[in-house]
Amino acid sequence: MKAGWFLSLVAFAGLHTSAAGGALFPSALAQVPPPPSGETMSTGAILADSPDSDWRPLDPRNTLYIEFPEGRVIIEMAESYAPRHVANVRSLSGEGYFLGGAVTRVQDNFVAQWAQAASSPRRPIRGEERLPAEFTQPRSDALTFTPLPDPDTFAPEVGFSDGFAAARDGDETWLTHCYGVVGVGRETDRDSGGGTELYAVIGHAPRHLDRNLTVLGRVVQGIELLSSLPRGTADMSFYATRDEYARFTNMALAANVPEEERTPLEVLRTDSATWDKLVNHRRWRKDDFYTVPAGRIGVCNLQAPVRPAQ
Amino acid sequence: MKAGWFLSLVAFAGLHTSAAGGALFPSALAQVPPPPSGETMSTGAILADSPDSDWRPLDPRNTLYIEFPEGRVIIEMAESYAPRHVANVRSLSGEGYFLGGAVTRVQDNFVAQWAQAASSPRRPIRGEERLPAEFTQPRSDALTFTPLPDPDTFAPEVGFSDGFAAARDGDETWLTHCYGVVGVGRETDRDSGGGTELYAVIGHAPRHLDRNLTVLGRVVQGIELLSSLPRGTADMSFYATRDEYARFTNMALAANVPEEERTPLEVLRTDSATWDKLVNHRRWRKDDFYTVPAGRIGVCNLQAPVRPAQ
Repeated sequence: MKAGWFLSLVAFAGLHTSAAGGALFPSALAQVPPPPSGETMSTGAILADSPDSDWRPLDPRNTLYIEFPEGRVIIEMAESYAPRHVANVRSLSGEGYFLGGAVTRVQDNFVAQWAQAASSPRRPIRGEERLPAEFTQPRSDALTFTPLPDPDTFAPEVGFSDGFAAARDGDETWLTHCYGVVGVGRETDRDSGGGTELYAVIGHAPRHLDRNLTVLGRVVQGIELLSSLPRGTADMSFYATRDEYARFTNMALAANVPEEERTPLEVLRTDSATWDKLVNHRRWRKDDFYTVPAGRIGVCNLQAPVRPAQ
Repeated sequence: MKAGWFLSLVAFAGLHTSAAGGALFPSALAQVPPPPSGETMSTGAILADSPDSDWRPLDPRNTLYIEFPEGRVIIEMAESYAPRHVANVRSLSGEGYFLGGAVTRVQDNFVAQWAQAASSPRRPIRGEERLPAEFTQPRSDALTFTPLPDPDTFAPEVGFSDGFAAARDGDETWLTHCYGVVGVGRETDRDSGGGTELYAVIGHAPRHLDRNLTVLGRVVQGIELLSSLPRGTADMSFYATRDEYARFTNMALAANVPEEERTPLEVLRTDSATWDKLVNHRRWRKDDFYTVPAGRIGVCNLQAPVRPAQ
């Protein structure tokens, strides 16, 4: 009996039983780093201290601009996690598919969704309308992964991969649906998305979407242009009339925009010492105002900072 | 050596080391209920099935109405968790302190904050400007608590208490900062809040506020009137000018509003069988669209449903 108990504890400490009731997550066993000594530093102070080598420029081939009258929403696409969808969105935007598009659905505490706004939707010319789902990727050493040791509700292991919040379970890895994440809208059929409709998360992380939708990337600037839109009042919070649409002139690939019209940005590398420091100072935040540090941070509580290219 | 290992595993399974690096949460050891058989039911279908006894009416003495030109925001106050602040907000609203107020700050993915909008702030007459903080309450059997066995990033134990998301650790209990939660603004001094300024969470749950701010209650209807406001552009996302303020005519206690002008609502009891069913069907959501159930749900992923009084 003792031996059996011993074994079950070993199993319990080392293994993860996927998607079954009562599965135990090894992440809960990991140690979080101890608090920094004294008061924690502000994000601004930490970033001001960071070496330029801890930042990387946005790649114009992986960057989308949505051009609203009020400003530009900038999306970084995650080519490693959705290679076929990223390539397809490049094609679609290259052929002008998103000219005269609009946000057609805004659901409070959930998503803002956009598409072309033609009354009879145009068909893509070179791009695909549908692609096989890219909900997860095989776990691979080619995908950088900085683990976050704090316990997560949904996945045995979470962390950050090239600036994106991510999770792993066994042989699978995927990007997690945090605030600002951009995903691929689809119909009921899992392979019915392609990138002709996209959505951005504008509320508390809907992690139940993880592994059920293809994540294309995340908004790195201008999310407030989506999150502050009026909520739709029709079914599923679509706008009830086309007059309510929040129209944009285009969603273009930065590489296709003249260089002088681009917004040159840099993202803090999530495999850098500055990122590790930032995570731990936010985890243990303690200053004149915050006197009880959480001692924990969630994978959706912190986003990789972005700054103008230096 | 074997004995030592045995002991450490026992300690590990049974204890929680509070707020220290590497603390282990017993919640991660709990079993979540198995999935319902077959496809999960929609929220609407589950609620349609619910007995009236699983619902309770909003108490007009614990209900606030913020009257915007676009509609009414309705807040349920959590008297058990912030008794002095709730009593004070009753007094303040009773003396007309919130007449001609405004949302003065909207920070994306964080909070909308409101106060009176007088250019020289009026002082309360019967109400208090400052009160001792009510960040936590002593754990007590008088506070109902329906535990959520799913692992939580921030607290060893989470659950629902009279319709509010809550957490417990040792002898302390508190309400957690989920989407829609209303808290008491303050200055740096922990005892500098009183209820003259309030905020609502409009983004991903900022759980680092837990135990650092007094939670007054939660928005049960109309959160979209706060969450879709333009974001402020001044320091801390306050509006840069008074012209930008989102003005309301009053924040009144429902008990002080003529009965025929009230909005009669009921809240699903979080100590009911219907709530348990709803939590588990959302945890294991599986239907034509969601083919990979999360098998987990977070304390901020589900709010107690509200319906018109029957």
